[in-house]
Amino acid sequence: MPTQDLNARLARVKLFLCDVDGVLTDGTVLIGTGGEVKRFHIQDGLGLRFLQGAGIKVGWISRRFSDATQLRARELKVDFLSQEPAAKVPAAKKILAETGLSFEDICYVGDDVVDLGLLKKAGVAVAVANAIAEVKAVAHYVTQNSGGQGAIREVVELILKSQNKWAEVVERHSAES
Amino acid sequence: MPTQDLNARLARVKLFLCDVDGVLTDGTVLIGTGGEVKRFHIQDGLGLRFLQGAGIKVGWISRRFSDATQLRARELKVDFLSQEPAAKVPAAKKILAETGLSFEDICYVGDDVVDLGLLKKAGVAVAVANAIAEVKAVAHYVTQNSGGQGAIREVVELILKSQNKWAEVVERHSAES
Amino acid sequence: MPTQDLNARLARVKLFLCDVDGVLTDGTVLIGTGGEVKRFHIQDGLGLRFLQGAGIKVGWISRRFSDATQLRARELKVDFLSQEPAAKVPAAKKILAETGLSFEDICYVGDDVVDLGLLKKAGVAVAVANAIAEVKAVAHYVTQNSGGQGAIREVVELILKSQNKWAEVVERHSAES
Amino acid sequence: MPTQDLNARLARVKLFLCDVDGVLTDGTVLIGTGGEVKRFHIQDGLGLRFLQGAGIKVGWISRRFSDATQLRARELKVDFLSQEPAAKVPAAKKILAETGLSFEDICYVGDDVVDLGLLKKAGVAVAVANAIAEVKAVAHYVTQNSGGQGAIREVVELILKSQNKWAEVVERHSAES
Repeated sequence: MPTQDLNARLARVKLFLCDVDGVLTDGTVLIGTGGEVKRFHIQDGLGLRFLQGAGIKVGWISRRFSDATQLRARELKVDFLSQEPAAKVPAAKKILAETGLSFEDICYVGDDVVDLGLLKKAGVAVAVANAIAEVKAVAHYVTQNSGGQGAIREVVELILKSQNKWAEVVERHSAES
Repeated sequence: MPTQDLNARLARVKLFLCDVDGVLTDGTVLIGTGGEVKRFHIQDGLGLRFLQGAGIKVGWISRRFSDATQLRARELKVDFLSQEPAAKVPAAKKILAETGLSFEDICYVGDDVVDLGLLKKAGVAVAVANAIAEVKAVAHYVTQNSGGQGAIREVVELILKSQNKWAEVVERHSAES
Repeated sequence: MPTQDLNARLARVKLFLCDVDGVLTDGTVLIGTGGEVKRFHIQDGLGLRFLQGAGIKVGWISRRFSDATQLRARELKVDFLSQEPAAKVPAAKKILAETGLSFEDICYVGDDVVDLGLLKKAGVAVAVANAIAEVKAVAHYVTQNSGGQGAIREVVELILKSQNKWAEVVERHSAES
Repeated sequence: MPTQDLNARLARVKLFLCDVDGVLTDGTVLIGTGGEVKRFHIQDGLGLRFLQGAGIKVGWISRRFSDATQLRARELKVDFLSQEPAAKVPAAKKILAETGLSFEDICYVGDDVVDLGLLKKAGVAVAVANAIAEVKAVAHYVTQNSGGQGAIREVVELILKSQNKWAEVVERHSAES
């Protein structure tokens, strides 16, 4: 159960940003002559769609370009995708400028040193279970699931529950006829 | 050991339906420029063939189209394959109409909110070990194995045992000469 | 530590046969439009080469054809490869006829019902950690490692140790200069 | 926490060498008609880049050629790549001749018998968690993480910490604005 402070933070999230490798995946990439392949989690993807259905924008920020990431982002109709070999805080600032939101509205999920800057600025900073110690140390929440194995879905449900929108999702699907 | 009620439910199964991602797989998809790849479990596949050998029809219902699923379904000669971005209860109703069976004859295995509607109607509702809490809450049985790691085979054996058809499978293979 | 009976059985092994899916792999196959892919373990492969170096023939028997298996078998110079949708005992008999060996000389490793017939005839019957209960019940040894994660290597070392050939392998490599 | 002796050894490392299969990967290779695919870990890769940033050269030594390894080595700008079916000590000697360093300057990470010779000569000998018993027996350090799941990153951080260069990496990224 999230603490009262965490719940208040989750309740004001309007923009969900996350890293890709180690967060949307288990941190491994499949490399061969046919190009790079990544392993994404279906429950994560469905969760991000629910988030968008609830009016929360979704963006992915990676410093490593990958066709695989682009393909998955398109399939999920992710609102913002940044894959530049540059710092992540400036990438987030561009999205904030475009949406008129502020750092306090952001929930950001990361796993490694390159995520530290943005985690320290986000309204909700989340470290995945497989994050390095330094990332966990600055996080408001550490997921129980690992990256690529439902970590993102876990955070999505926390946000939707804090905003009283999860029960509606469950009821709608249960009532199928 | 299944309870007496569960055993009675399993004994009347004539149609085995299941979700694909997270149930026949571990919930991850491999995405790259060469198309989507899924990881299926051989013991699951052999189990479904045994089920068909025992006169039970097999169908897969996913809301997400994938060539990988179609290829695997063909290899296993799955009787029904539905891959439409629509609700699952109507998809099951079409199969029931075609086979003259009723919801009580169905064993359905799922893992996520999109499975809730059909799980609430099926004679035997099964949640895989990696299902979300809401799915486990409506299930008659929760598997010990995870999706893609033998969950389907586990349910297949429960059904065949409840219908006294498993011992025959084992004896036939043990007697090879 | 193997018991005295198991050690005596291992000491007379002259032919090492094993199943493929679930034994040389973790039981999953990757399926996509680019064909089937399997995940093999490098320590297993090196172990099989050591076995051949010690004069023990190696063969793989699967009832499911796969290009991936053929490619890996060629790379490892496996002596016998059988991929026919038929019973496994006759496949083993063909190899015995060709080599002049008998069932008592065979160590066979399997995981599923289709392996039961051959396991009941082999001099050493091995079940992998992920084998079904019926296979473990007829095995002389159950591996600690799972298929595709070193199960084959584990058996290889047991055989080489029982035949006093493992220490030589370790010493030769330690002495590199 | 590394012991004082281990710390002294780590502090003088100027050349980081490692095996590939089972060390930079989990020891499995994906084999299909489209060629071989390997699964590398992103946190490992970033760690190796940090190592180079701190002036430590990086090299990979495998006895098994693979295009996948070559592709990943190029992406990470690895300084030395040796993929010959020959002994590893001579391969390391070539690198030492080129760099003017000695065995005491080397940290080498391995998992199997083919690594024993070089491990016995290296200033810091590391065995991954999934190494065979004989490799662990000659190692100064055994990683907590398995190969392909962060074992290399773990060693990288130990080296950088022993040389007082890790804190700088963390601070630089935390200060992003």
